[in-house]
Amino acid sequence: MSDLSFFHEPRSVAVIGASSDPEKIGGRPIKYMLERGFTGRLYPINPSRDRIQGIQAYPDLDSLDEAPDVAIIAVSGASAVAQVVRCAEVGVKGCVIMASGFGETGDAQGLAWQSEMLDAAARSGMRIVGPNSQGLADFASGSILSFSTLFTEQPPQDGSIAIVSQSGALCSVPYGLLREAGLGVRYAHATGNDIDVTAAELAVEVLKDPEVRLLLLYLEGISDLEPLAEVARVALEADVPVVALKGGRSEAGQKAAASHTGALATEEAVVDVFLEKHGIWRARSTGDLVAAAPLYLRRERPRGDEIAIVSNSGAICVLAADAAGEEGLPLTVLSAETRADLTAALPSFASVENPIDVTAALLTDSSLFGKVLPILGRDGGVDACVVGIPVAGKGYDVERFARDVAAFEADTDIPVVMVVPQSSIARVFRERGILVFPDEAQAIRGLAQYLRHHALIERARARRVDPGGRAHPDGPAVTLNEAESLDLLERIGVPTVGRVLVGSSDEVPAALERLESERLVVKGCSSAITHKSELGLVRVNVDRDDVVRTTEEMIAILDGEGVATDGVIIAEMVKGRHEGMLGARHDPVFGPVVMVGAGGIYVESMPDVRLLLPPFSFEEAKAAIGELRIAAVLGGVRGAPAVDVDAWAEAAVRLGEAMLDPALGIRELDVNPLMLLEAVDGRGGAVAVDGVVVRSAAAAS
Amino acid sequence: MSDLSFFHEPRSVAVIGASSDPEKIGGRPIKYMLERGFTGRLYPINPSRDRIQGIQAYPDLDSLDEAPDVAIIAVSGASAVAQVVRCAEVGVKGCVIMASGFGETGDAQGLAWQSEMLDAAARSGMRIVGPNSQGLADFASGSILSFSTLFTEQPPQDGSIAIVSQSGALCSVPYGLLREAGLGVRYAHATGNDIDVTAAELAVEVLKDPEVRLLLLYLEGISDLEPLAEVARVALEADVPVVALKGGRSEAGQKAAASHTGALATEEAVVDVFLEKHGIWRARSTGDLVAAAPLYLRRERPRGDEIAIVSNSGAICVLAADAAGEEGLPLTVLSAETRADLTAALPSFASVENPIDVTAALLTDSSLFGKVLPILGRDGGVDACVVGIPVAGKGYDVERFARDVAAFEADTDIPVVMVVPQSSIARVFRERGILVFPDEAQAIRGLAQYLRHHALIERARARRVDPGGRAHPDGPAVTLNEAESLDLLERIGVPTVGRVLVGSSDEVPAALERLESERLVVKGCSSAITHKSELGLVRVNVDRDDVVRTTEEMIAILDGEGVATDGVIIAEMVKGRHEGMLGARHDPVFGPVVMVGAGGIYVESMPDVRLLLPPFSFEEAKAAIGELRIAAVLGGVRGAPAVDVDAWAEAAVRLGEAMLDPALGIRELDVNPLMLLEAVDGRGGAVAVDGVVVRSAAAAS
Repeated sequence: MSDLSFFHEPRSVAVIGASSDPEKIGGRPIKYMLERGFTGRLYPINPSRDRIQGIQAYPDLDSLDEAPDVAIIAVSGASAVAQVVRCAEVGVKGCVIMASGFGETGDAQGLAWQSEMLDAAARSGMRIVGPNSQGLADFASGSILSFSTLFTEQPPQDGSIAIVSQSGALCSVPYGLLREAGLGVRYAHATGNDIDVTAAELAVEVLKDPEVRLLLLYLEGISDLEPLAEVARVALEADVPVVALKGGRSEAGQKAAASHTGALATEEAVVDVFLEKHGIWRARSTGDLVAAAPLYLRRERPRGDEIAIVSNSGAICVLAADAAGEEGLPLTVLSAETRADLTAALPSFASVENPIDVTAALLTDSSLFGKVLPILGRDGGVDACVVGIPVAGKGYDVERFARDVAAFEADTDIPVVMVVPQSSIARVFRERGILVFPDEAQAIRGLAQYLRHHALIERARARRVDPGGRAHPDGPAVTLNEAESLDLLERIGVPTVGRVLVGSSDEVPAALERLESERLVVKGCSSAITHKSELGLVRVNVDRDDVVRTTEEMIAILDGEGVATDGVIIAEMVKGRHEGMLGARHDPVFGPVVMVGAGGIYVESMPDVRLLLPPFSFEEAKAAIGELRIAAVLGGVRGAPAVDVDAWAEAAVRLGEAMLDPALGIRELDVNPLMLLEAVDGRGGAVAVDGVVVRSAAAAS
Repeated sequence: MSDLSFFHEPRSVAVIGASSDPEKIGGRPIKYMLERGFTGRLYPINPSRDRIQGIQAYPDLDSLDEAPDVAIIAVSGASAVAQVVRCAEVGVKGCVIMASGFGETGDAQGLAWQSEMLDAAARSGMRIVGPNSQGLADFASGSILSFSTLFTEQPPQDGSIAIVSQSGALCSVPYGLLREAGLGVRYAHATGNDIDVTAAELAVEVLKDPEVRLLLLYLEGISDLEPLAEVARVALEADVPVVALKGGRSEAGQKAAASHTGALATEEAVVDVFLEKHGIWRARSTGDLVAAAPLYLRRERPRGDEIAIVSNSGAICVLAADAAGEEGLPLTVLSAETRADLTAALPSFASVENPIDVTAALLTDSSLFGKVLPILGRDGGVDACVVGIPVAGKGYDVERFARDVAAFEADTDIPVVMVVPQSSIARVFRERGILVFPDEAQAIRGLAQYLRHHALIERARARRVDPGGRAHPDGPAVTLNEAESLDLLERIGVPTVGRVLVGSSDEVPAALERLESERLVVKGCSSAITHKSELGLVRVNVDRDDVVRTTEEMIAILDGEGVATDGVIIAEMVKGRHEGMLGARHDPVFGPVVMVGAGGIYVESMPDVRLLLPPFSFEEAKAAIGELRIAAVLGGVRGAPAVDVDAWAEAAVRLGEAMLDPALGIRELDVNPLMLLEAVDGRGGAVAVDGVVVRSAAAAS
């Protein structure tokens, strides 16, 4: 594992292109380091000044008595390149290159410059952050190698949150929002073009700091999987939740991302399942990235996802319950004892069912929250509380409410989120470190994120570790015909339909002896033909007596198409109660991906699919199937029996294992339909009746 | 139409239970009216004081020289009742009853008191707001008949927004949020128990004010349809958009609402379609209710829903494009001319595709927004702009940006929403009346609401007016058997399968002569049996030669069940390419409801349904079908032909008309499946092959 600690605690920093103007790019890092009490040696480099911002300046690197640990490159173009080369030569450990106009422009000059700098760095072992980097900031050590204006607008305060972003703006925005909410930020790193040091590598570095308790990531694109998997692994080990925002979820967003950074358009559903599998929460907006931050800073972890809602307004009780319903957060069914205690504590006209409406009596009895919350805490079934105070102000003892909520949070491991639309009232709670949202929907959404993310982390922790490092298959590929595809499926452990491949109708009688079903399916087989049905190459429900004739017709059709005929498949007729689908392919970034979904002819027009990243367990496969829309009918409706979902999940696991086996060389695989049979005594089976496999030519031969 | 104008501009107001303490319920209205310069006569009524808050007080109503237009009842329980009765006797026009402890408690005393007050009011023609009302506030006239503490916390400012809420808290919350955003509010009405004057009636009253340009409604429950339809009608006429929040969307929310106010649990999907049909936007949270308010106050109405995104951060461009994708707002494809103009105006490395990344060059060229926005305005395809400034502060000419955006909004009819996370920067834009959101997702969501709501209003305007006033059918009902049900469907214009009902197998030969299809369906017919298939009472694909035997078997099964046998249906075999469903019933509040959906046996387990409120047009029915999940396959996929969606929509329209015909007395109706046939030359048909109708006994006899 690389050591980037010199960026966080450099003994010495040179600022090449240092400016006396503290608002210039070459001036701000100096100003910030002086303000933050950076204890290392600081060397402004500027050939035309003796002193800069009150400290001694130097004409060039060679005038220094030492090779500084870090050099900030605040000059641009060719002179940035020259300075980086010189830094490497004198033994600088790391450069932060702020200038833009390199790889991100896509032009040849910029790319050539990047190569030149990388080469120089490689020769000396120097590391490069950037170019096009806003820079790195460590507010614990005062090593502010960054020109973000936000550190002026929102003065820093050290804390437990780390931000690592590939974009300067998306480092500044969460920094600003967190600081505005009064939260401390320890690291605010914006990496830029990532030609050497990547955002993921820096994220791993900040996770070494035991003070970090929440990591926020912004990724422009994901071009390499392993570093991100490493971040997830280290974060799980350090018990630091990671919330990631990645642009390009929509088609328009992907197009914009491509024009912005040339980021590879990855399939977003794969990104989702990758992050989920690794216990990383995917935020959907900049607001989402920071919304639940204070909850993550709690020492205690949530126990479950059942919530209680308390308010002095019945309307807010109703609306918060609606929001919980929308987010799928269950409301705790309170125990009889809890309800009895609430009845004793509350006015007779209050509601002691969850949500709990303490009514306007709060105006005359300021102790109500202080009474109600501990009762809910003792219930045992309440994992989090939402407290809504839509109306307060004069006459209300808001200080006391805040004290009571804070005391409850301190005494129990139950988090509280407040719904307080009035900013003057919200402030009183925020000052005590209580998380406040202006409306019930945002509060429930933030809480749901926190509770669900915790469950995600727990699941990721329980999962076997992905060994990773699989090469993307390349070289020539071949498409197997249906018979070969079904044979391969059988070999990897996916049950297939009983069948015999015949070369001519002469072989039919022998074939029929090996097949059990009364009626049969006859299919022309050729790897050159993808849409068999349209050509009349699939006949179902064929009588045993008609198979010879049908086989001859198939051969005639194949001959008529002028394609290579691989024979005719005589298969047993299997009709599942439902039709599933299994698929697999290799994502260029994420590697093998397995799909489970509803089968049939509408897989594209009415898609109902979930993804799995191998290796995955039987339980994971079953959970993915359980999330399909058709899951609602697989258990049997209107008296129909359940189908054998276990067999489907097992077939998916087998396929996942096969995708990890380079010797098999499976590039793409489609089984549709996978006939789902009735579960008899819990067993029934899932049978592939049609399939196509594309394999690496080398493996197939 | 009732006249409630005396609540808005009373010549005189008595406050019964007037208090010298301006923080008491009986003190606040007086304080507020004095502060707001109420020009009518104000009579504090309190037997133990000569003067209250500096003005003369009176011992009782009888000491006044006149019957005041309005009396605020700030005393409680039995004395509130006595005062209301006296008000009615002396000729007060309207009372606002603030005390709680009446109908909302559900106890007999409270309900009896309500009746007593209503009776007294009815005798004299006096109107009652409340009880349990926070009161009414008109900030134009200064008639503040309300004790909301929020008017102290957030001082009033007259404006163009009206709030009418059944809940005090949900009147105060939007008031506070709007005032905090610097927006003026003219009316802030909270009605309470609505025993006489309803929120809807007051909403119609405020819509008479030509200054009102946005109406926000909060409804606890909808027990009566016509008043709300009237609000919608008047609002459309006055061109005032209505945004409504109604609690109880979720099951938990409905339960909470029932315990809070005893509100009737209406089916929320019906509420959705009712509001949509009437051009009312349904907000989903308190934040939603006010989020887009400033956009609604614009004089110009939006032209379409295509947006352009502009930012100095590529990351925000990507994230805003993602948010637009999520909300379904299309990004304008800019014309070649626009792109050429942008190329000329922007640095070479900026993106001139939408989203438009003006890059960090904004720091050195403050004119960029001022240049880019007018170019987008001239494009002709841009209906709204989203401008993101994630990072600004020192060095940025934010004042100029705000000036340029404001000028653009003033010069064109194109609304702009800003994404500005830093509150210090956001303030600069807000001061110029520009709508600012802290993150891109909220901005796009607010904009989408505004643009979509406008389209909703336009559609509502184009719709024929619902005559309304239909009584809910009652009295005894009968379930028709399948034969009778299909006959009724045929009669109302829904195409049905060719069939003959036979009483015995003797009638089969004659029946067969009247049926065309080669193979037939034989079904036992009895209104006493609902699940025919389970009893073996449905045989499909029956050979003509087997019909006699099958008919005899059916009769035997029916006899074996010991139920009344209504005969056996011999029907033609119709297999649609897809199976649809048609249904209808009466909602106790909303009246007749028609359903279109995917048919088959999974209508309950995988529901795919849209609702329609009769009367509706062919186009509306077609649009509803187009929103179904199965719509994706109805046009034909993988070479399959399209089905006749028009025939389905026509059948739905016929059903809608039938539901409005009281003579038919249709209570409930289910057609499943409705076989959807291939469209041949645009025609093919939709054929009901099974159906059940429940009719009022009187109509059926």
